[in-house]
Amino acid sequence: MTATADTTAGTRIVLGKNQYGKTEVRLVKITRDTDRHQIEDLNVTSQLHGDFNAAHRDGDNGLVVPTETQKNTVYGLARDGVGAVEDFLIRLGSHFVNEFEWIEGGRWAAEQYFWDRINDHDHAFSRNKSEVRTAVLEIKDGEKNVVAGIQDLTVLKSTGSEFHGFPVDRYTTLKATSDRILATDVTARWRNSAAAVEAGIDFDAVYADVRKRLLTTFANTHSLALQQTMFAMGEDVLNAHPEIEEIKMSLPNKHHFLVDLEVFGQDNPNEVFFAADRPYGLIEATIQREGGAESHQIWENIPGFC
Amino acid sequence: MTATADTTAGTRIVLGKNQYGKTEVRLVKITRDTDRHQIEDLNVTSQLHGDFNAAHRDGDNGLVVPTETQKNTVYGLARDGVGAVEDFLIRLGSHFVNEFEWIEGGRWAAEQYFWDRINDHDHAFSRNKSEVRTAVLEIKDGEKNVVAGIQDLTVLKSTGSEFHGFPVDRYTTLKATSDRILATDVTARWRNSAAAVEAGIDFDAVYADVRKRLLTTFANTHSLALQQTMFAMGEDVLNAHPEIEEIKMSLPNKHHFLVDLEVFGQDNPNEVFFAADRPYGLIEATIQREGGAESHQIWENIPGFC
Amino acid sequence: MTATADTTAGTRIVLGKNQYGKTEVRLVKITRDTDRHQIEDLNVTSQLHGDFNAAHRDGDNGLVVPTETQKNTVYGLARDGVGAVEDFLIRLGSHFVNEFEWIEGGRWAAEQYFWDRINDHDHAFSRNKSEVRTAVLEIKDGEKNVVAGIQDLTVLKSTGSEFHGFPVDRYTTLKATSDRILATDVTARWRNSAAAVEAGIDFDAVYADVRKRLLTTFANTHSLALQQTMFAMGEDVLNAHPEIEEIKMSLPNKHHFLVDLEVFGQDNPNEVFFAADRPYGLIEATIQREGGAESHQIWENIPGFC
Amino acid sequence: MTATADTTAGTRIVLGKNQYGKTEVRLVKITRDTDRHQIEDLNVTSQLHGDFNAAHRDGDNGLVVPTETQKNTVYGLARDGVGAVEDFLIRLGSHFVNEFEWIEGGRWAAEQYFWDRINDHDHAFSRNKSEVRTAVLEIKDGEKNVVAGIQDLTVLKSTGSEFHGFPVDRYTTLKATSDRILATDVTARWRNSAAAVEAGIDFDAVYADVRKRLLTTFANTHSLALQQTMFAMGEDVLNAHPEIEEIKMSLPNKHHFLVDLEVFGQDNPNEVFFAADRPYGLIEATIQREGGAESHQIWENIPGFC
Repeated sequence: MTATADTTAGTRIVLGKNQYGKTEVRLVKITRDTDRHQIEDLNVTSQLHGDFNAAHRDGDNGLVVPTETQKNTVYGLARDGVGAVEDFLIRLGSHFVNEFEWIEGGRWAAEQYFWDRINDHDHAFSRNKSEVRTAVLEIKDGEKNVVAGIQDLTVLKSTGSEFHGFPVDRYTTLKATSDRILATDVTARWRNSAAAVEAGIDFDAVYADVRKRLLTTFANTHSLALQQTMFAMGEDVLNAHPEIEEIKMSLPNKHHFLVDLEVFGQDNPNEVFFAADRPYGLIEATIQREGGAESHQIWENIPGFC
Repeated sequence: MTATADTTAGTRIVLGKNQYGKTEVRLVKITRDTDRHQIEDLNVTSQLHGDFNAAHRDGDNGLVVPTETQKNTVYGLARDGVGAVEDFLIRLGSHFVNEFEWIEGGRWAAEQYFWDRINDHDHAFSRNKSEVRTAVLEIKDGEKNVVAGIQDLTVLKSTGSEFHGFPVDRYTTLKATSDRILATDVTARWRNSAAAVEAGIDFDAVYADVRKRLLTTFANTHSLALQQTMFAMGEDVLNAHPEIEEIKMSLPNKHHFLVDLEVFGQDNPNEVFFAADRPYGLIEATIQREGGAESHQIWENIPGFC
Repeated sequence: MTATADTTAGTRIVLGKNQYGKTEVRLVKITRDTDRHQIEDLNVTSQLHGDFNAAHRDGDNGLVVPTETQKNTVYGLARDGVGAVEDFLIRLGSHFVNEFEWIEGGRWAAEQYFWDRINDHDHAFSRNKSEVRTAVLEIKDGEKNVVAGIQDLTVLKSTGSEFHGFPVDRYTTLKATSDRILATDVTARWRNSAAAVEAGIDFDAVYADVRKRLLTTFANTHSLALQQTMFAMGEDVLNAHPEIEEIKMSLPNKHHFLVDLEVFGQDNPNEVFFAADRPYGLIEATIQREGGAESHQIWENIPGFC
Repeated sequence: MTATADTTAGTRIVLGKNQYGKTEVRLVKITRDTDRHQIEDLNVTSQLHGDFNAAHRDGDNGLVVPTETQKNTVYGLARDGVGAVEDFLIRLGSHFVNEFEWIEGGRWAAEQYFWDRINDHDHAFSRNKSEVRTAVLEIKDGEKNVVAGIQDLTVLKSTGSEFHGFPVDRYTTLKATSDRILATDVTARWRNSAAAVEAGIDFDAVYADVRKRLLTTFANTHSLALQQTMFAMGEDVLNAHPEIEEIKMSLPNKHHFLVDLEVFGQDNPNEVFFAADRPYGLIEATIQREGGAESHQIWENIPGFC
């Protein structure tokens, strides 16, 4: 392979956006300063940005910090403690940018899994799988952007949800309803302003409060559409958190179909449902402040959102 | 195809053990007698036993209760309430045995998923994914056998676990340790005596107590081997529950490897671990009462246990 | 914990059936005697049987060959070549039984993944994911029993499948059909006679032939019930292979529902289908030789079969 | 909830980018014009774009074409045949834009699963799981953009891969190698020029050729880095296909670690490997024509690529 190549039409083929790194580094950190241990459980991904033309065109790895090194660095930095996952990513990303002058930036991400103490035991835990916390850091042009998030949070309302007034065409079979089950898996990600990140954010406190607001607003909103519930959830978060620029949500409409029991001679007053898998509705939106950016570039690198 | 067939050696080919039914019927039951709703969330499987030679040999379906009918029956019976999952399976299985004279028995199973109220709300819930409850009923020769269970319960001790004194051969690389992380996903299934089932069991209460004992014994046992911890867990359950004949457990040893930080100039006093996926140890045993059956036939039809 | 324990009723709690080992050891073996490389790709599980009361009751690991050692042995033995997966398991199991006098037997299992050459290249391959080969060896009382198998083989007939003549009750909604899609994921496992194993079997040749027969009989049988198709598949295998004692199959009935297009003003002459996920039918049976064992004990330890 | 809301800072909260629709509509289409049936197997997603403020702010669904209607439309349009998946998506997307004046555009996507004939049978098939074909259509401002793709194509070279010359720091543990296994799961997506889409593309022929080139270049490139192999693969595709503007690839470096057999007294001349799961390297890049767009907006809505 030569370092350059021409198309039949004479246009040179070039390397566009690219990144590389180590994905899904499973880190469990036990803090045992006292007999009452703490556990932190992360799945960390590190991806570096820079000019890697030589590796792609010539197989010259002179600038390629091995992905194995990136993995090792996760463990090495964790020795000094983890803390809020966003803060850990900032330490991790800053290390690479500072250590290697040709690393212009990168993307660092993590999932955090939660553990509860068993009977308030000092060193025995059971995993709380009801949600996963997520975080993404992008460093670009010296600026640190942080998107925090939550996923796999499954919620359901057994009433207080309607759906009607929709347009009808040849392919319409859905019946209007004034009482249905509303269920979804909440995936939400919120971007902090770069200024707030610079000034310092209590990420753990914000996470706890956003989580509480998402749950509470979901529960308390009488729903005429999942869209409406979603917007209310995001609006409540933005109203309470000026450091958050926008929040994106991706909410599957997990259909619970009322089973027709009439053919068996039974009524079914919204009591017996078939919980369907596929297909499912999918409702996605950005809720943001008026005048905010149309689309911040960090979102290009966060899968699964419109 | 003829109804009989001969091997080259002249031996007739026959139908041995068989069963058929509908698998993974997703049932969500909302009880709304008052404004404070209850939710029950099950994944139900129904499998029938009988003489189905005609279907297998001649495609004669005269005795084949359609799997669609089995599904419908799950929903129809749920209209009258679910209750303890084992009791629901007994109602379901009894229906088929009573309704169709040629159905000699069968196997009915379910997984139950749990939901918590959001802020003690009357009709808003979030799923508690930290464990799944399981149940299997087998009706055979008129006897009802019930195996209850729990799965996907992930637990970890950050200390209080040793492993040493093992035999050494040419292929041994493991180092003895007096302090390691012990982590597992608890899958446990316990068989009730047929007499106790006949007399009636408060299955919900037993489930709650067994769950509590498994967690507590895991937490409180200083472990010299996962085998030892497992036996203690089962023994505690059997001591407290005379209605349980035996308990089987299948416990992966989820390895957490101490990361060698010395090459980076750091110590690692049991603080930074790599949580590995595969391979993993797998420890399985039956804990039972002396003089009990070597192996009750219901276990043949419960996957994943020795 | 004491070495014995009494129930409230005075019955001692004892250790029943048990096993332990290393699960999912991912082995890739490249044979490079010539420039034309061979690749073998296995997922191996090793589980040992013996008297492990001391480990369970006292945490005494004197007889516990570490699971790490079992893993290492997989790799060590693979150095001398793999060959037919069943033969490799026999070498692996024999090693443990011969090396450690207290190991009375065990269970060794593997999945084998297939690779095709890319353009008949000497050392470039693409994975053929269309099926997985399985094998289980159990050594007990000095006898070697081998169950070979295939799984994840997805097949479909777009016609040539009927279903009618079934009993009707209050919960019946299924309509009889003389033309439906028949689709399933074939999971089949066949047990070789111990005598044939002792004499030596060309396992690769048998696998290829059984696979061919399962596919061909599925394709060529006009089906009145999935049960009938399944029996025909097993019968064909047994007729051709006297060394096979019985074959078990577990076949999901992967429902393809004809979409009602009439409401859109369209007909649908068996052309447009919704491929459903859950629930699904599940048809399971043993096809065996007359006079054969009701249920060989090796099946107790093979998950997912009736 | 009111239609407007103010933050503590007085900034109004607004709806940003959003979309909604039905996801994972499983369509199996049998073409049976002759006795020799054809099968097409798709997983289709439909998402609509437009001004849905009323639904989000007021729960007014007057413009919300139900996701159920979108699903029905997939089946209704399939009645007239599927064809190349990209062409089907264009018919599907055009339908919504033409039928509902307020639908400004949308995103339509599909996965296609392949089936082989069993023994060249007329209506019996087995699924070929070795790869999945993907397609995304976005309609925006009246322009149709199409990204085609392939995923789940697992490839491996048992030699012909080196990795050395990388920078070394405190956290470096990787050893340089001149002979390693190179393995990856190919996920590739290529964007066609809007002009070529307008003029018409033989999408099936292009898919077949791109697939062949990806495989062939992977096999034939002596690799000094996975980055180099990836670039060569993309370059070959772009050189042959002037209608493709850019191709993005996401390639996990599926590590195969040489097992240290020396401690067992054995050598290991690149023959026995442990195939690891996590963590894994991840190499991602865009290969494009010089002067092409930095980042076309369609990529924002395609998960999993840098």
